[in-house]
Amino acid sequence: MKEYSEYLSIINSAISNLRLPEHPAGLYRPIVYTLDGGGKRLRPVLTLAACQALGGEPMSAIHQAVAIEMFHNFTLLHDDVMDKADVRRGRPTVHKKWNEETAILSGDAMLTTSTMLLSVKAGDHLAQALELFNGTAMNIYEGQQLDMDFEQRSDVTVEEYIEMIRLKTSVLLGCSCGMGAIMANAPFETQVKFFEYGVNLGLAFQLQDDYLDTYGNPDTFGKAIGGDILNDKKTWLLIMAMNEDKSGTIKSMLGTDIAPEDKIRTVRSVYDSLNLPERIHELISAYIDAAIKCLDNIDLMPEARVFFMDLALRSATRDK
Amino acid sequence: MKEYSEYLSIINSAISNLRLPEHPAGLYRPIVYTLDGGGKRLRPVLTLAACQALGGEPMSAIHQAVAIEMFHNFTLLHDDVMDKADVRRGRPTVHKKWNEETAILSGDAMLTTSTMLLSVKAGDHLAQALELFNGTAMNIYEGQQLDMDFEQRSDVTVEEYIEMIRLKTSVLLGCSCGMGAIMANAPFETQVKFFEYGVNLGLAFQLQDDYLDTYGNPDTFGKAIGGDILNDKKTWLLIMAMNEDKSGTIKSMLGTDIAPEDKIRTVRSVYDSLNLPERIHELISAYIDAAIKCLDNIDLMPEARVFFMDLALRSATRDK
Repeated sequence: MKEYSEYLSIINSAISNLRLPEHPAGLYRPIVYTLDGGGKRLRPVLTLAACQALGGEPMSAIHQAVAIEMFHNFTLLHDDVMDKADVRRGRPTVHKKWNEETAILSGDAMLTTSTMLLSVKAGDHLAQALELFNGTAMNIYEGQQLDMDFEQRSDVTVEEYIEMIRLKTSVLLGCSCGMGAIMANAPFETQVKFFEYGVNLGLAFQLQDDYLDTYGNPDTFGKAIGGDILNDKKTWLLIMAMNEDKSGTIKSMLGTDIAPEDKIRTVRSVYDSLNLPERIHELISAYIDAAIKCLDNIDLMPEARVFFMDLALRSATRDK
Repeated sequence: MKEYSEYLSIINSAISNLRLPEHPAGLYRPIVYTLDGGGKRLRPVLTLAACQALGGEPMSAIHQAVAIEMFHNFTLLHDDVMDKADVRRGRPTVHKKWNEETAILSGDAMLTTSTMLLSVKAGDHLAQALELFNGTAMNIYEGQQLDMDFEQRSDVTVEEYIEMIRLKTSVLLGCSCGMGAIMANAPFETQVKFFEYGVNLGLAFQLQDDYLDTYGNPDTFGKAIGGDILNDKKTWLLIMAMNEDKSGTIKSMLGTDIAPEDKIRTVRSVYDSLNLPERIHELISAYIDAAIKCLDNIDLMPEARVFFMDLALRSATRDK
């Protein structure tokens, strides 16, 4: 096995060697801009590492890994249009830097390009890789639709929320792991277990994201703290508080235009009084345990097991 | 060979039997709505007919035919958002009936669904079918980008215009024919010839569309005549007139807000004085001839040749 940073640099050099066409520039430049945004590249690293952990040559999954990263960046691009977000990773979003038409069309081209990349040197695994990839994509759209539906509803349950983040975020981590297993020619059972590892990792990852948005350190987290609270975003924290806060404080805060720092302080004090920071970490730990249990059911070399266990444990304690 | 109407009814029943999921409704209902809009279904008919013309069973290409129709409808959906079009086939567009986020997300889901359909029962043809389909999709995005770029330019040449409509419109007709050839297990040379037939047919088809928008009969054409003139849309007619009209009338008409009927009458009189209606039909005939020449290089049964020749000739003389 390699270090995370080694997989990361393989991914980054594959992305910078993509050589997309230059014309028409209005179509291709926003794609290069989007991919240049960086990020953790967690998904393609999972693909290469899962492939290697199961005895495959990591480079045999490189096109599929980049395909998944391309797909992930496409979803961010279109989500930013839908959410009217102006900033992503500290830079203007594509629809702000160019315009909305460009963001829609370049995103479409990224989605098709991701399918093309997925097919490169897929050999006998093509049909299976496509089935996993396309099925995952449909789940992600369903998750995004549920997320938008939840904005209009005040009765979202915790179970519905978990199902939404499973679809919108977690299955793509599952797909990343499963894709590595497919490219390593692993048995179907192993593919499924690695997929489930990724889904549990993804649930822990998203819940930690919810936690950091409210309780993170602004210096390490990289963006302003409290954005979810100010936007009345239906995260696990808010849904739990809406269900359990009998004082009416939470409901009175929704849609109000009091000073941002007052709103953040007030909502956070309700979360604190309900012990939500501790309770979300219990939930995160449960998903990490479930992820590690999946690893126990895969026949892995010790160093591969350590790699994926570390990754899971770090997701639960990360501060950025 | 079957009649056009028989292929059409096979396509329509396959579309109504698609059985998309029902939830989340916000994601799937706009897809059903878009596919229900009807239209000529020219592309999937070409796929089934090309497959049968080359000795294949037409039903062996049904999933690929529906995939192409799904893809075509996805492009219309996203184009309507980009063009801010309110009406399509006499009904409100998705972003008017729902909203823009719905139109973007449902379109994404249609694109992924089209790739899924393309893979169904593709067997050994999967890699080749995907390559043709994805390459065509990239061409179409490039064409759409050029079309948007042209709006900002006053020096578009006729050659650039033809290249734009080749990418934006014609290659999908080529892909439809080529896909039928692939599914019929035809030799590569035959696939290429059938693809070229479709591209030439597509060029003739689009130029006839340009003609009808200005010179069509509103009763048969199904939409108001003169929309392209009122929008200063850079069609073959306008580009030719901008190049050849020495009186300055055309330039004085661009961007003016005179009464619509006056603008249409004035621009059309310049087109008439330059003989553009006759000249566009000479060009259309040349593409039809080129399409028929492609057929001559394919070993076809007489009734298959008649089917595709008729289709080409009817495209050039259609009034709707």
